[in-house]
Amino acid sequence: MVPINKIALLTSGGDAPGLNACIRAVVRASIFHNIKVVGIRRGYEGLIDGDFFEMDSATVSNIIQRGGTIQKSSRSPRFKTSDGRESAYQQLKKEGIDAVVLIGGDGSFAGSKAFTSTYNIPWIGIPKTIDNDLTGTDSAIGFDTATNTAMEAIDKIRDTAESHNRIFFVEVMGRDAGFIAYETGINVGAEAICIPETENDVQHLFTVLEKGWGRKKSSLIVVVGEGNEAGGAFKISNDVKEKFPQYDVTVCILGYIQRGGSPSCSDRVLASKLGVAAIHALLNGEKNIMVGEIKGDIVYTPLEIVTKRYLEIDLARIELINILST
Amino acid sequence: MVPINKIALLTSGGDAPGLNACIRAVVRASIFHNIKVVGIRRGYEGLIDGDFFEMDSATVSNIIQRGGTIQKSSRSPRFKTSDGRESAYQQLKKEGIDAVVLIGGDGSFAGSKAFTSTYNIPWIGIPKTIDNDLTGTDSAIGFDTATNTAMEAIDKIRDTAESHNRIFFVEVMGRDAGFIAYETGINVGAEAICIPETENDVQHLFTVLEKGWGRKKSSLIVVVGEGNEAGGAFKISNDVKEKFPQYDVTVCILGYIQRGGSPSCSDRVLASKLGVAAIHALLNGEKNIMVGEIKGDIVYTPLEIVTKRYLEIDLARIELINILST
Amino acid sequence: MVPINKIALLTSGGDAPGLNACIRAVVRASIFHNIKVVGIRRGYEGLIDGDFFEMDSATVSNIIQRGGTIQKSSRSPRFKTSDGRESAYQQLKKEGIDAVVLIGGDGSFAGSKAFTSTYNIPWIGIPKTIDNDLTGTDSAIGFDTATNTAMEAIDKIRDTAESHNRIFFVEVMGRDAGFIAYETGINVGAEAICIPETENDVQHLFTVLEKGWGRKKSSLIVVVGEGNEAGGAFKISNDVKEKFPQYDVTVCILGYIQRGGSPSCSDRVLASKLGVAAIHALLNGEKNIMVGEIKGDIVYTPLEIVTKRYLEIDLARIELINILST
Amino acid sequence: MVPINKIALLTSGGDAPGLNACIRAVVRASIFHNIKVVGIRRGYEGLIDGDFFEMDSATVSNIIQRGGTIQKSSRSPRFKTSDGRESAYQQLKKEGIDAVVLIGGDGSFAGSKAFTSTYNIPWIGIPKTIDNDLTGTDSAIGFDTATNTAMEAIDKIRDTAESHNRIFFVEVMGRDAGFIAYETGINVGAEAICIPETENDVQHLFTVLEKGWGRKKSSLIVVVGEGNEAGGAFKISNDVKEKFPQYDVTVCILGYIQRGGSPSCSDRVLASKLGVAAIHALLNGEKNIMVGEIKGDIVYTPLEIVTKRYLEIDLARIELINILST
Repeated sequence: MVPINKIALLTSGGDAPGLNACIRAVVRASIFHNIKVVGIRRGYEGLIDGDFFEMDSATVSNIIQRGGTIQKSSRSPRFKTSDGRESAYQQLKKEGIDAVVLIGGDGSFAGSKAFTSTYNIPWIGIPKTIDNDLTGTDSAIGFDTATNTAMEAIDKIRDTAESHNRIFFVEVMGRDAGFIAYETGINVGAEAICIPETENDVQHLFTVLEKGWGRKKSSLIVVVGEGNEAGGAFKISNDVKEKFPQYDVTVCILGYIQRGGSPSCSDRVLASKLGVAAIHALLNGEKNIMVGEIKGDIVYTPLEIVTKRYLEIDLARIELINILST
Repeated sequence: MVPINKIALLTSGGDAPGLNACIRAVVRASIFHNIKVVGIRRGYEGLIDGDFFEMDSATVSNIIQRGGTIQKSSRSPRFKTSDGRESAYQQLKKEGIDAVVLIGGDGSFAGSKAFTSTYNIPWIGIPKTIDNDLTGTDSAIGFDTATNTAMEAIDKIRDTAESHNRIFFVEVMGRDAGFIAYETGINVGAEAICIPETENDVQHLFTVLEKGWGRKKSSLIVVVGEGNEAGGAFKISNDVKEKFPQYDVTVCILGYIQRGGSPSCSDRVLASKLGVAAIHALLNGEKNIMVGEIKGDIVYTPLEIVTKRYLEIDLARIELINILST
Repeated sequence: MVPINKIALLTSGGDAPGLNACIRAVVRASIFHNIKVVGIRRGYEGLIDGDFFEMDSATVSNIIQRGGTIQKSSRSPRFKTSDGRESAYQQLKKEGIDAVVLIGGDGSFAGSKAFTSTYNIPWIGIPKTIDNDLTGTDSAIGFDTATNTAMEAIDKIRDTAESHNRIFFVEVMGRDAGFIAYETGINVGAEAICIPETENDVQHLFTVLEKGWGRKKSSLIVVVGEGNEAGGAFKISNDVKEKFPQYDVTVCILGYIQRGGSPSCSDRVLASKLGVAAIHALLNGEKNIMVGEIKGDIVYTPLEIVTKRYLEIDLARIELINILST
Repeated sequence: MVPINKIALLTSGGDAPGLNACIRAVVRASIFHNIKVVGIRRGYEGLIDGDFFEMDSATVSNIIQRGGTIQKSSRSPRFKTSDGRESAYQQLKKEGIDAVVLIGGDGSFAGSKAFTSTYNIPWIGIPKTIDNDLTGTDSAIGFDTATNTAMEAIDKIRDTAESHNRIFFVEVMGRDAGFIAYETGINVGAEAICIPETENDVQHLFTVLEKGWGRKKSSLIVVVGEGNEAGGAFKISNDVKEKFPQYDVTVCILGYIQRGGSPSCSDRVLASKLGVAAIHALLNGEKNIMVGEIKGDIVYTPLEIVTKRYLEIDLARIELINILST
């Protein structure tokens, strides 16, 4: 096993709250173990271009609470090509890098798999995505903050809904996975939740609306995951308008506010733990794995089997929704 | 002058943070001066239907911090008809109401003018609109909170913009007035602000973008008022995409989160002062006026001259934008 | 097994964010299963006095997001006496109550144990304490929100610390357990954490301060758990002032803000799940247990073995602190 | 008149939210008018030591939303001596500084007066103090944010107060001026407000408590200004405990959280306007003045007459308190 003296650290893909907390943990754990850290700017793009800078303890001082990423991020079409990855490899060799730590989501890890299948540089992934749609960890960095942000936004919308006897369709992020939609739906007391993983959402929504209307409930909140199979909030709201002309219907797309902001307690702790775990994994001789946390324990998953996951719609989840919207 | 023994209180039009704080102040000032308060639910709709309830000090306990309105609100097509207003009048007579206090915006005040031009019941308006587009007051209840909410949302978006070298077009509320757009644009350090009151926004935006790009500014935030003459955020962003294909462009519509939430300090104080001032105005024999605050002083404006206003685009404002986006 | 037709619900002890979300879940789960719910006001005090009210779905509408408890709470010396508990029992019999659901902390559960050891009414406890010092659940309702509130407060204090080269001693709640202190210490990037469970905190702090000073770190945050064995923040800060007169030292006691506020996502979800689980437990014939969540699963713990717990100071925790304050 | 080619900018005294927004405005306005800006670190201390750095548009990018001050601040005993001021003057001459812009409070302005009475370098002050106790401006930078922070903290405390039938004494900042105490007292719906400027507070509090108790009000919030003549929150709460043993009494000292955090909309706008106004004043040939905003207009006040001010306790304010706590 080659000793690890110098690592490269990069953040890739969409940003998420907790990225800076994780950067800080990786850097401090490295310093603690006498490893040098080279930061790469703009994700794979910066890796290909050799956009490197030295990181020390001061570089990551006073950033734990900040949204975004001090290293900047990007999506890189070039890294999808073997030429791009070859350039990246040459840059790493030239800089004398012994291992790479990448904080990213499933798109970024696809790049990692392609790279590590060809080149022999130990590579550790740390899962970060507000969508939470990755195997190998219960929660990815950013998910807890994003759900809290969405929840607080919908709490505000509830004020207006309560004042006006109106139905609000609120679309949250999550791409084709329903993690944010489910969590925020439960937590704002939504009367209905439309998530990509279930069918018949809209039919069920009609039933709920009929029930709600019958009970003269004053307002209704429907949380819609952006990747819902029946369409997003605009599409579903139109279907409802046709069937229930008596309701006043409004659509809100929460959008990018869910990506930013100061990370929550859970995300800072998760980011700190995983950042430290990544360095420990390297010191233990691990390579080409993702570190995650499952049921409170740090787990390693080979990068090649890390994959996209969806929300499991089990009976307990369905019953919880039904009970709480009683 | 008829002594005021019993008043009716209603909230009308879109809700705004601070409504409950104002309701509380009206009720407590009335009790303080031995006046009874009858609450009307659902604005003019409830007035026409006689949907009344008694209000005392406990009714308004622990509501100063809440968004929305405990009396609910509505927009009422019926009140636009003389039949509707006649029903309303009969309800007020039946209940023995000596005066009406209405917390509303310009749409609601149009109804007030129509009513008071026919019926002789003293009527006091209190200005409430997050859009701030009313004469007779520097700030309407809800405006300060709405701008703070929009600002905090855009602060989060800035995190992502900074991380990704991207242009964000963020559309804020305000209908055809640019108050929210201007304030939040200044306060988030937007590189450009598109407000309904100015022409050539888009042309100026092109200039700013060229300048920004030349200086290699990493990210750009453009705040767009929803009623902008060149179109909303979607339209303008499309124009930019065509002209600057090198930028990564994203659109966010902040939407209804700007209406809700706990009111800010300024809005609670304004709501409290105006609620008390409304009762003082009645005790002073005033009728058919709106109470407002201009440069720190309470002012009365006859309801018939209260009107829609727009943001004044003077040289000082333009220069401030130009300087701060240097 | 007696069928459960009517339950009593009460909240007891110090309030915690998520109480209302849990009340809502208990009521809705009961209605869902055709069980009537009688609410008890003011905890055991109200139980002894028969201060009961009927609860239905509307009672718990629009409360999921609110701090405090709509049922009010109290600490009850009377319930510690057998006379008090006998009165409580008579009130329950008179009302025809088949089972009791209590949301409380370790003090409240001591009362539950005393009651259930004498009287045969099924009793289900739900753990709620911002201090998180209870066995039988990974997290008690309120803990996540309290740590987030403390963290956000210390983030603000960090702004001042960074501006002034000053040491801040920030005392957080948690009584004689260090859960809040540890979590917030990690999450604000504290240079030192003093928790009740460890000895030699102050000696270690001296070492850290010497190291920090040597590295010319501009500011220092020390998080102190209120029940620390070396004294609270005032005591420790005095010891530091004596040894390091070159530092400007300030003390902040965060205090009661940690108890209130709108619950976080995690607390709303936990409160909702445990509220539903309590009713399911009753339907399953369980009695005299506390429902909790451990590693994601609902677990039942007999009330008689639920007990106070402390933060486990294992090597992983100590190393995490040391690494992150590098 | 000497042309202004290069200015020095410093922040002095306690930090306040909005300092960074003001720094940004001063720097950008200077650049806009082709003036160079030299930043001074650590207030007067850095001025004496020549701790200077160049500031350009990028230096102040993405700081408008941050609490604290990127230039750091300090209190400087040395600047109170003529030797210290002579050193400062020599540093300014050596650096070729044509004018100084200082963002500070009354302590800092005392230093400015001493300096400008001896040395002939144009000096512009910008008022910043969360205590708001300065003449020459309606509001100083930081005051609006501090009151909002205090208000939000007390809103959380209200949750607990409502749940427990308890009296909370909450001490807010403001030194010997009652601006924060008055504003937050009104805005949280406090049952009583104790401010340094009034006598007989405690006697009035006794009356309120008797009235509140008589009306069986469930909880009471008393907001106490830290510099109250009858003592702080601890002292007054003890007096109350003696007289009203039936109440459960708790004390909270909000403390330093009021200094930090992201600035509010109002503070960012004020900071931006005053920063620009300071440069305009220099360009207009002004010297040794403070720029402020009174009733919406920019005003210049000679530094030598800027002084400490107190809250004016007029009848309108007293009546507002009495009415709203009805």
